[in-house]
Amino acid sequence: MRLQHVVESQQFTVPLLMELFQRTRRMERIVARGGTEDYHHKVMATLFYSPSTRTRFSFEAAMYRLGGKVMSTEQARMFSSEVEGEQLEDTIRILAGITDVIVIRHNETGGAERAAQVSRVPVINAGDGQGGQHPSQALLDLYTIYRERRSLDGLTIAIIGELDGGRTARSLAYLLSKFERVKIFFVSPPEVQMKQDILDHLDEHDVWYALESNVDRVVGEVDVVYQTRIRPERVADRRSLGGFTIDSSVLRAMKPDAMILHPLPRTVELDRTVDGDPRALYFRQAENGLYVRMALLTMVWGDD
Amino acid sequence: MRLQHVVESQQFTVPLLMELFQRTRRMERIVARGGTEDYHHKVMATLFYSPSTRTRFSFEAAMYRLGGKVMSTEQARMFSSEVEGEQLEDTIRILAGITDVIVIRHNETGGAERAAQVSRVPVINAGDGQGGQHPSQALLDLYTIYRERRSLDGLTIAIIGELDGGRTARSLAYLLSKFERVKIFFVSPPEVQMKQDILDHLDEHDVWYALESNVDRVVGEVDVVYQTRIRPERVADRRSLGGFTIDSSVLRAMKPDAMILHPLPRTVELDRTVDGDPRALYFRQAENGLYVRMALLTMVWGDD
Amino acid sequence: MRLQHVVESQQFTVPLLMELFQRTRRMERIVARGGTEDYHHKVMATLFYSPSTRTRFSFEAAMYRLGGKVMSTEQARMFSSEVEGEQLEDTIRILAGITDVIVIRHNETGGAERAAQVSRVPVINAGDGQGGQHPSQALLDLYTIYRERRSLDGLTIAIIGELDGGRTARSLAYLLSKFERVKIFFVSPPEVQMKQDILDHLDEHDVWYALESNVDRVVGEVDVVYQTRIRPERVADRRSLGGFTIDSSVLRAMKPDAMILHPLPRTVELDRTVDGDPRALYFRQAENGLYVRMALLTMVWGDD
Repeated sequence: MRLQHVVESQQFTVPLLMELFQRTRRMERIVARGGTEDYHHKVMATLFYSPSTRTRFSFEAAMYRLGGKVMSTEQARMFSSEVEGEQLEDTIRILAGITDVIVIRHNETGGAERAAQVSRVPVINAGDGQGGQHPSQALLDLYTIYRERRSLDGLTIAIIGELDGGRTARSLAYLLSKFERVKIFFVSPPEVQMKQDILDHLDEHDVWYALESNVDRVVGEVDVVYQTRIRPERVADRRSLGGFTIDSSVLRAMKPDAMILHPLPRTVELDRTVDGDPRALYFRQAENGLYVRMALLTMVWGDD
Repeated sequence: MRLQHVVESQQFTVPLLMELFQRTRRMERIVARGGTEDYHHKVMATLFYSPSTRTRFSFEAAMYRLGGKVMSTEQARMFSSEVEGEQLEDTIRILAGITDVIVIRHNETGGAERAAQVSRVPVINAGDGQGGQHPSQALLDLYTIYRERRSLDGLTIAIIGELDGGRTARSLAYLLSKFERVKIFFVSPPEVQMKQDILDHLDEHDVWYALESNVDRVVGEVDVVYQTRIRPERVADRRSLGGFTIDSSVLRAMKPDAMILHPLPRTVELDRTVDGDPRALYFRQAENGLYVRMALLTMVWGDD
Repeated sequence: MRLQHVVESQQFTVPLLMELFQRTRRMERIVARGGTEDYHHKVMATLFYSPSTRTRFSFEAAMYRLGGKVMSTEQARMFSSEVEGEQLEDTIRILAGITDVIVIRHNETGGAERAAQVSRVPVINAGDGQGGQHPSQALLDLYTIYRERRSLDGLTIAIIGELDGGRTARSLAYLLSKFERVKIFFVSPPEVQMKQDILDHLDEHDVWYALESNVDRVVGEVDVVYQTRIRPERVADRRSLGGFTIDSSVLRAMKPDAMILHPLPRTVELDRTVDGDPRALYFRQAENGLYVRMALLTMVWGDD
């Protein structure tokens, strides 16, 4: 299967996901052996219209572990000194003439899609807009669960946080709907609960879900605690925020083989005392991003 | 022939241009075969006192296609955390001790020349000041014409736009004066026409030229339409700006084997409907910048 | 001997310094032969919370001369687009999962130490805080003296400038106290003289020192003139500043085999007329930074 561009997580069918995950395992082994130089002739441009060093570094490290080269900007709005806000399509056409892959973070939803439409080299979306897509994050989340459990069928998961605008929570729910017998608890203050479009999508695909407003009620049942941030200013009753925090009391209630994930960065919703627990896999999750992005790169180049 | 530094387009004699163009062709073939690792031991510093990601990426991709390494800043004014605006000469002397080539964009005219005077490694000017030089742009413009026509002698060209301050238009006119039987139409609103110093230079070298104020009058005669931007605020009668725009009506009047060039970025002066025409070579022109810059790098290092 | 992290110059014992200097010599020879590709599988992250292109480029060039790869930010405070000022420890844990060494410049004293405590890959301090450490600078200063004299025992040195807050002057004095029969003149306006903590340390280690307020009185006696900046606004009597300037009259008084060092950047305290004198070694000193940093990298990776 050939991926041309990586624009949104919806592109990924279950067979494509399984191929991605097999490649990702292979990349883990390659990195453990010291990386490869197989792609030394490839050049990546990371074209970021706003800074996100975390995501940028993950893509750049992926490229380097494959042996490739990277050129990089976090102020792509200044792409030319002469015309502020030069047309995205022109920028992409020019870059496509001198590089082998463009990793783009654009400030407008749909920016990555616009880039893909005019590019003769693969475009990978590293996040576009506020309500937009961030497919490599969703894929590494899913891979982290898959890697530990060997399967996504039959998964029970609590997705916690400010879910209405949560790009990663939304994408994860979307991807999980492709698997069998998945159960999702959305745990959120009512005013920032998961939006109806995702719930409708889950209904259409016969995915079981429930809306909850306290972590404690569900944490004993789930295989995965997927925690995300809640900005206090979005919640009417801030005293209720404690009900969405992962701390040592939540650890005690969790199943012994469950796992805690978080897309990071975190603020107060994930207590640092949790870090030492073997079920705390969020740093491993970040590391998996490296392998998933390496796998994506080899897929868009059409290599076996 | 050995180039020590690339500071201004005037350095290039016709034999040196021909050597550059031959090397450039070779670089095109090398990139088509996947680049080379011949220069893996070379390190480039791109030292930009103001951001210009387009030019920077072109030089960096050139270095990478040669197998080399790149370190990069677009805020060179902060070169040291202690002394804002550290003396350029000191910065260059330090960089020359740790790199193999310095690509500089300086905010003052003459900055690249100052750098070259104290550097023991080659310095390449990537644009200095407003009225300064940008020799690699002029060279890639000229190469693009040469590549299509196999010769620059006998060329008829329309150079269009805001020409009085146009760095690329001025440099191109200068370089064209080195060839035989060249005819140049300068097409510009009278208030921003090409300056007398360039016209005097053309007179001295017996180059035919004419000043025009409408594209339509000349477009049927020329081999090359070289379009540049016009900032509307510089023109008294903005209704006249349509007379300097390249659109489908200009396409119809152009010779079938002519070409349209533009240094990019563009605003309204080059309509997007033109992009699909086979004579629209401006994205190819940008790509040629990669090969020209690769060739320049091998020349300043004195390699065959 | 294995270095795990490079956090402060106090880590370096005399045997460790001697090993570092031997490695540094070897690195000089390797660079003279065109560098090595031995570390092509290594990836460095330069994580700068404030820009210092000079120091960053020196580390990056060191990594490149070893054959390695570099990813780089000078605005690490924007590490994540979501949480301004993401916790340093989280940032480091994530980076440690995808790189082989982290070179950090942090804006708070102790930042590098905090990073080292949570990192599973080596952390190298590239300067932390105002009153903090900058160990690679101190090491390259010391190496430059060692390289010329083959020994640090018996050295007589004048350390000149605004010494109370001078990070490099303080670190150098500290490192020199490890050697035999060293004599130090601290030459400074009284109001910015070296602080008592360093003088106490020298007393404890039986190092001879004297406080002076004019260069001319000591310059004929010393093997090394180590000049640093004085900000005029820190000195009550600005007319006295001439007494701390290195110029041609100081050159005449210096011993013929002495040397002038300066950590750079400079302002007026080191006259440009001095640059041509064979005893002016400050650009050589900057170049030595490349070799010292290469040596540090191979040491933290535990390679022979």
